[in-house]
Amino acid sequence: MTLRTDEYTPKPEHHFTFGLWTVGNTGRDPFGDPVRPAISPNYIVQKLGEIGAYGVNFHDEDLVPRDASAADRDRIVREFRAALDASGVRVPMATTNLFGDPAFRDGAFTSNDPRVRRYALQKTMRSMDLGVEFGAETYVFWGGREGTETNAAKDPREAMKWFREAINYLCEYSKSQGYEYRFALEPKPNEPRGDIYLPTIGHALAFIHTLDHPEMVGVNPEVAHDTMAGLDFAHGVGQALDAGKLFHIDLNDQKAGRYDQDFRFGAVDPKSAFFLVKLLEDSGYDGMRHFDAHAYRTEDEDGVWDFARGCMRTYLILKDKAARWNADAEIQQIVGGFRTRGGETGEAVRFSAEHAAGLKEQTLDLEAIRAQGYGYERLDQLTMEILLGVR
Amino acid sequence: MTLRTDEYTPKPEHHFTFGLWTVGNTGRDPFGDPVRPAISPNYIVQKLGEIGAYGVNFHDEDLVPRDASAADRDRIVREFRAALDASGVRVPMATTNLFGDPAFRDGAFTSNDPRVRRYALQKTMRSMDLGVEFGAETYVFWGGREGTETNAAKDPREAMKWFREAINYLCEYSKSQGYEYRFALEPKPNEPRGDIYLPTIGHALAFIHTLDHPEMVGVNPEVAHDTMAGLDFAHGVGQALDAGKLFHIDLNDQKAGRYDQDFRFGAVDPKSAFFLVKLLEDSGYDGMRHFDAHAYRTEDEDGVWDFARGCMRTYLILKDKAARWNADAEIQQIVGGFRTRGGETGEAVRFSAEHAAGLKEQTLDLEAIRAQGYGYERLDQLTMEILLGVR
Amino acid sequence: MTLRTDEYTPKPEHHFTFGLWTVGNTGRDPFGDPVRPAISPNYIVQKLGEIGAYGVNFHDEDLVPRDASAADRDRIVREFRAALDASGVRVPMATTNLFGDPAFRDGAFTSNDPRVRRYALQKTMRSMDLGVEFGAETYVFWGGREGTETNAAKDPREAMKWFREAINYLCEYSKSQGYEYRFALEPKPNEPRGDIYLPTIGHALAFIHTLDHPEMVGVNPEVAHDTMAGLDFAHGVGQALDAGKLFHIDLNDQKAGRYDQDFRFGAVDPKSAFFLVKLLEDSGYDGMRHFDAHAYRTEDEDGVWDFARGCMRTYLILKDKAARWNADAEIQQIVGGFRTRGGETGEAVRFSAEHAAGLKEQTLDLEAIRAQGYGYERLDQLTMEILLGVR
Amino acid sequence: MTLRTDEYTPKPEHHFTFGLWTVGNTGRDPFGDPVRPAISPNYIVQKLGEIGAYGVNFHDEDLVPRDASAADRDRIVREFRAALDASGVRVPMATTNLFGDPAFRDGAFTSNDPRVRRYALQKTMRSMDLGVEFGAETYVFWGGREGTETNAAKDPREAMKWFREAINYLCEYSKSQGYEYRFALEPKPNEPRGDIYLPTIGHALAFIHTLDHPEMVGVNPEVAHDTMAGLDFAHGVGQALDAGKLFHIDLNDQKAGRYDQDFRFGAVDPKSAFFLVKLLEDSGYDGMRHFDAHAYRTEDEDGVWDFARGCMRTYLILKDKAARWNADAEIQQIVGGFRTRGGETGEAVRFSAEHAAGLKEQTLDLEAIRAQGYGYERLDQLTMEILLGVR
Repeated sequence: MTLRTDEYTPKPEHHFTFGLWTVGNTGRDPFGDPVRPAISPNYIVQKLGEIGAYGVNFHDEDLVPRDASAADRDRIVREFRAALDASGVRVPMATTNLFGDPAFRDGAFTSNDPRVRRYALQKTMRSMDLGVEFGAETYVFWGGREGTETNAAKDPREAMKWFREAINYLCEYSKSQGYEYRFALEPKPNEPRGDIYLPTIGHALAFIHTLDHPEMVGVNPEVAHDTMAGLDFAHGVGQALDAGKLFHIDLNDQKAGRYDQDFRFGAVDPKSAFFLVKLLEDSGYDGMRHFDAHAYRTEDEDGVWDFARGCMRTYLILKDKAARWNADAEIQQIVGGFRTRGGETGEAVRFSAEHAAGLKEQTLDLEAIRAQGYGYERLDQLTMEILLGVR
Repeated sequence: MTLRTDEYTPKPEHHFTFGLWTVGNTGRDPFGDPVRPAISPNYIVQKLGEIGAYGVNFHDEDLVPRDASAADRDRIVREFRAALDASGVRVPMATTNLFGDPAFRDGAFTSNDPRVRRYALQKTMRSMDLGVEFGAETYVFWGGREGTETNAAKDPREAMKWFREAINYLCEYSKSQGYEYRFALEPKPNEPRGDIYLPTIGHALAFIHTLDHPEMVGVNPEVAHDTMAGLDFAHGVGQALDAGKLFHIDLNDQKAGRYDQDFRFGAVDPKSAFFLVKLLEDSGYDGMRHFDAHAYRTEDEDGVWDFARGCMRTYLILKDKAARWNADAEIQQIVGGFRTRGGETGEAVRFSAEHAAGLKEQTLDLEAIRAQGYGYERLDQLTMEILLGVR
Repeated sequence: MTLRTDEYTPKPEHHFTFGLWTVGNTGRDPFGDPVRPAISPNYIVQKLGEIGAYGVNFHDEDLVPRDASAADRDRIVREFRAALDASGVRVPMATTNLFGDPAFRDGAFTSNDPRVRRYALQKTMRSMDLGVEFGAETYVFWGGREGTETNAAKDPREAMKWFREAINYLCEYSKSQGYEYRFALEPKPNEPRGDIYLPTIGHALAFIHTLDHPEMVGVNPEVAHDTMAGLDFAHGVGQALDAGKLFHIDLNDQKAGRYDQDFRFGAVDPKSAFFLVKLLEDSGYDGMRHFDAHAYRTEDEDGVWDFARGCMRTYLILKDKAARWNADAEIQQIVGGFRTRGGETGEAVRFSAEHAAGLKEQTLDLEAIRAQGYGYERLDQLTMEILLGVR
Repeated sequence: MTLRTDEYTPKPEHHFTFGLWTVGNTGRDPFGDPVRPAISPNYIVQKLGEIGAYGVNFHDEDLVPRDASAADRDRIVREFRAALDASGVRVPMATTNLFGDPAFRDGAFTSNDPRVRRYALQKTMRSMDLGVEFGAETYVFWGGREGTETNAAKDPREAMKWFREAINYLCEYSKSQGYEYRFALEPKPNEPRGDIYLPTIGHALAFIHTLDHPEMVGVNPEVAHDTMAGLDFAHGVGQALDAGKLFHIDLNDQKAGRYDQDFRFGAVDPKSAFFLVKLLEDSGYDGMRHFDAHAYRTEDEDGVWDFARGCMRTYLILKDKAARWNADAEIQQIVGGFRTRGGETGEAVRFSAEHAAGLKEQTLDLEAIRAQGYGYERLDQLTMEILLGVR
């Protein structure tokens, strides 16, 4: 692909990461067989290093097959360690596959079957051990099977209780082992379950406050997931940042109101991607930019690396545009003008009995306020022209 | 309408309430003029009393026009008080209209214009005073204009900050006045703004934890609002109940993924309505059942009261079905069977270092777990047959 | 399952059919492995006969594996024939799997690769031959892979042209072989492709008119598919009936705006299912009622048959309710009253120059028309009470 | 607004048009009052001329108030004629408001009340006369009220019949008067009705084939409308072009799965807008580019003209990008390469008995076909980089 190789070339300092399951996706879907051969974790790591990624993440089963012997596990770990060292690629995040095994068909931490709930704890503890071996600092929980197809099956209050018990247990486990994990809950509204518990960023943030150790737990929002529910992703991420809870982020793309697409970052909705990148960069977010996406099923392996490079390039293109937006004098004049409307100072309003009494009686110039427009059409058009590269 | 008048006849003890704006809706919509004449608050109260409602709620402007003189305000309040006394109808909830006035075109608490943010505080304090005059105990905040059409206009982190300042201020105002309000935040994903802040139950619950007085603030979820985003409403309400934050509820109906419809309760999705009623009744929720809905625009005034009666009847029909479900031996056998699968006791799992060490080494009979089905097709079909009245 | 076995017991005369792929679904999904063992076509046929189904449908590969030898094919056909004879189950419909093979990753009839388009024709002709061997009269075309993830790949006008060439070719093939197939196009908006061509009933109906033999081709609408796009399914089916093009129908259920769920008929939206059944029965539709659905992934084989029985029972329950609705005097009075409003006769209006001139000058009593309501709240509540079994 | 004024400056030759109701929108919405004063048709025409628009369109009531006297009508027409002449702005399209009047609360052509159906014919004939006075050549039918909130109200087959009677009548009227109108049906899935008949481009195209004069009738697709249903708009427009039925087009923007937003063209989804512009330009579509949109409610009149200029500029920016895409050698190499895969010629396949017999026996190199990727990730990333202006 003839792409400009200067400004938008990814480097490890950009903190771009991929999951083994993303570039390793073989293209199986509900209606079709795999279209690409499986590729080994070690080869993935080598390639990610070559294309400028910082890190690689995995579910336990992505690296160590579900029924591997102890000897096999040790060999796999040793060889993967060597591949990481050779490539300079790191493992900043790890997670557990709690959705593939038929045992989890009714959920893992919220299965109606108490044995399954125990199995989920067991599998997660083992997987946390594995992650620590590779230096993972963030531990992600995606509860893809935690949900229902019919509410006849389960009282949602009970599901919340079970979910909380599990996260509390695992927080204690992490502390007891001396692990320094930060946990990140990844919300999703549906698929593969009819309706999944903790469906959005908001629900996950709220749930954290009910835990025994809320300080250990944040969120791992995914563009595609909140977008499936038609929510503005930057608003959700902004609320997570406001609460100090953005511990990790999954970047990809998706059309609203349909199946989980996991498209290349920015490939569907570049405007929302722009505002997201701008928010992350403006906020000083210093965590990983993880691409939880995969190549179209039409692709062979070449297409997979085109996909991976495209994710990172688009991020850097949008980052550059965010800087242009911040530096655009006309834009900044519009944005800055609101603060001082009507001679205001824009200072925070703090309650006192006197302030309230005064404000209740104050006469505001409502006619002037009602008549004044905000100039958002102009502001948005200027933004679009930066996005489209004509400004 | 020939409806059975015995079992499903609403009575004040059922705690059904309507807003003045609901039965008083004149049928104006974005493409059409009003189809029904405005009806007076006093007449509404009389009619609500006749059809068995417990209470009536209002926005400040529903009762007292935006620019009323002090004398007009006093007269309106006096006459409304008399109408309430005559009918026995109560005012359990009040709220502020922060969306109709052109002043709020960019939001109220989160407008970019600092004068508007002050006006919103002023209007809300006055409206809280009005509510107290009628004994309202719950104060609802629906931030319908708090949002954006383009994220160029506003940083979502700043909007969160402004929103929090306002709610903190108003909590202090309530306390300073000796009011005993409980505040209830009402989330909505979009309409009339492109994207509204605090779009779902989850986001509202999370936001509460960042306030100065979280104990004063809960949520007022509305069926139509979370349904617009395609979320399972009972799951969201379940999470609110789990957090002790269900302070009020707005009942109506809606198809997912479209404009705000505010249909008669149960008219679109009786199955979800059934699980909601069951959850409310099972949980012992003792708050108001508020119907925030309105008659189809095809209707004249007769249709309005058909609509209002239908909301209440459907609730009572579904409440009866929930009791049948709980009493159905076959259903209870299925539901109860999960607890003891594999000889389990279903007790909560609590962490200890020993427990974790033991669990990590335990051998689970995964083949048995993987093979066992859950019987949810049967359970759901039995549920459907109760719902359809053939069981 | 303790279900009433009298009124709602399915019999072959009800023309209920299932696909081999529906009750044979093993529960694999994008995130998880199969949970149920594969069951043989012959066993399926035996079971379908036992539970009262009329027929069974299949894709070529459901019966004869993709790479079967000629000898294997013959044996499979012979044994399946015997199973059909033993059970009395018929094969009213057949279709081709043009989506599972990686060859079809960019579509079958609309793949950019001309070799794939030829392969799709070849595979379909062979599959049509197979269907004829079992007496299939309807041949369904579901173009699940006919679409794009990016419009950079293909001009939609070219895709329409290729699609038309293929259907024209296959119509000629059917005629040349003396087959008496009626073709039925099955629309779907998305999944597994990002966007599928002919996404709704409307698009498929429109496309038929551009074919060489439109009389041979109709539609096979599926509840879940138009529902994914949030469309009213009964409206689409009504338009197909109006055009004489309802050749087959796929019954199941689905929440709007999400992944393809293929739930048990009536399990999500019984009200829409009621209006659909009513429309089919009122119209005298005499084709198959095909359940293109599958059991929840939580189920074992018992759950599969619970699922299949539930589909049929719910249809019969709703059919009974449709008859009650038609016989309800109060409902009929409301519905009938519209015809004669203002002394009208309700006769069709036919153009003539005189009629138009007269109508243009006529003075209508607009004030009366504007004031009159339609009573739809009452009508809908009465309908709900029939649906809920309390009327 | 500091916008580049050279390449992207709209001129009449670009055939950009606006409706009186678009730039004249006062910002009323379901929850709020108007925010902008009404502006006169004559002033709108003057301003449209100044900013480079080609034409203006209107509903009857946009120009002549619903209850105007004959004398008022004549004066309004005369003055508007003068304003058009002065500005050089033309009237290429006209339409009837069949949705604002309470009379149409249950639909116009499909109202259950026969008097309303007659009134709709009367009003449309009068409005067609008005359009002819201004030289309108296209007559648009948007059936915004043709639909239901409950299918209890109406059988969809009857609605189709009534709708057809009306369009047939009006075709005859147009012919009998010697008018040369081309009719264009504008589909929409919902809002203001719960579900609208002819919800998508496909349904409208299909309906046309059931009319007495299908040659007179085409479609007027609107970006926002098919997007509300989550459909790919370019696919629908491509099908309309393929059928020779794209008579007019409404350009705006919209997020999927929510209320009708009518945003500035390209403001939400510039990628889809790009593919649409490319399709229109590649196809040689020579009709109007009508912007059926309005300024955000946050705006005053300045914002309205910013909005209008932005619509046209974005179209021209995307048109320029479409030309770049067509001229990009690397892109064309990828796109062209599919035609000759496997040594194919890409010629259309035509049926003959010999061809079919040969094809059925042909051995295709399926392994090669299955292994080959399509390079769509690369193609789409190159497209994105043209869109973002970095290529």
